[in-house]
Amino acid sequence: MKKAVVVFSGGVDSVCAVSFLKSKYELYGITFSYGQKANMEISATKSFAKKLGLKQHKIIDIGFMKELYGDSNVLTSSKRKIPSKFEYSIVVPIRNAVFLSVASAWAYTLNASLVVYGAHTGDKYYPDCRPAFAKKLESAFNQGEIDGINSKIRKKIKIWSPYREGLSKSDLLKKGKKVLGDSIFRTWSCYSNKKLHCGVCESCNNRKIAFEKAGVTDKTKYLK
Amino acid sequence: MKKAVVVFSGGVDSVCAVSFLKSKYELYGITFSYGQKANMEISATKSFAKKLGLKQHKIIDIGFMKELYGDSNVLTSSKRKIPSKFEYSIVVPIRNAVFLSVASAWAYTLNASLVVYGAHTGDKYYPDCRPAFAKKLESAFNQGEIDGINSKIRKKIKIWSPYREGLSKSDLLKKGKKVLGDSIFRTWSCYSNKKLHCGVCESCNNRKIAFEKAGVTDKTKYLK
Repeated sequence: MKKAVVVFSGGVDSVCAVSFLKSKYELYGITFSYGQKANMEISATKSFAKKLGLKQHKIIDIGFMKELYGDSNVLTSSKRKIPSKFEYSIVVPIRNAVFLSVASAWAYTLNASLVVYGAHTGDKYYPDCRPAFAKKLESAFNQGEIDGINSKIRKKIKIWSPYREGLSKSDLLKKGKKVLGDSIFRTWSCYSNKKLHCGVCESCNNRKIAFEKAGVTDKTKYLK
Repeated sequence: MKKAVVVFSGGVDSVCAVSFLKSKYELYGITFSYGQKANMEISATKSFAKKLGLKQHKIIDIGFMKELYGDSNVLTSSKRKIPSKFEYSIVVPIRNAVFLSVASAWAYTLNASLVVYGAHTGDKYYPDCRPAFAKKLESAFNQGEIDGINSKIRKKIKIWSPYREGLSKSDLLKKGKKVLGDSIFRTWSCYSNKKLHCGVCESCNNRKIAFEKAGVTDKTKYLK
């Protein structure tokens, strides 16, 4: 069976992305702890790794990123507030490049042919979620291993995301609901670090709208 | 003064690359500890950071890479031997992509315009040292921050290396010797982790040859 490495945040996007690939790939999950406020994500990944039958699951501490990023964005800053609509302050500079470079290094080691992250068409405001970025990054990584690929020591990788397939968040939810049933409501989307989803941050808002669009009754418990 | 982030290994290449840029940039060094056998590199970086007047110097522990890489290459494997001539087993898959993604994330945060690594024309067997890779990676990273760049929140970065300027290891040594004097011999090149340079691994061999080509008497102490 072909292998895929999945950047696995415990959010609804990456969990549902796995639902799309589960029958075709042997899956290796990689979760990054980078000093984000929402560390509820991390604990969610462990149970979903089991539920989705990942072959291996690594939790990688890159807490040093919090110090490097400082107050450049609201997700790692301890001072700045999280807005309810998209603002560029939410964008963590090339966060996905950091995640995907480590995930791809592992993929070359495992001889996996696919590296996956959960970006979808609703992530259009995030430049490191768009297909143009994924395509260029994939090309750069394969260039960085070109001799190994040409001599068949390594496998060429493709960076796959729902966005590159034209899939929206509600497409992901529909598929995820089929595979996961009600446990889909235990995924974590909120940017804050509270016991329940805050219900007001940009990410909670997107979650609510996507469940509605998917025609799935949203059983997530929100604070507001 | 413009800012540059330098991937700073304590080896002769990155130390001498800084010698080229020192007068034009305010320099921020970033050193990665990734489970390489040659951890002598790390201690060398601290004294060179001071000597070269780096504005900041961060030592980043990415020891998890050793586990991800496993036995895929001789530099992180605890089983495999290091050869004296180039073999593909020395290539750590897209190691420079991992280093450069973290360094570039920091560069976007600092509003630095240059990200530097010490690859030179002698590194032609390493695909992630070649200009084609650096150029594609730079393009991917800037694509990943394109909205921030277009709206002037972030600065576009360039990935600079001596290789992209057509400079060889001996060009670097000549320039480094001028700036650093005899302390250049305290840089660390060896792949092994012994008290002195082993004198027989591929990297020690390249060092010896480059000093000879540069016409600089090599005062490095080698075991052989």
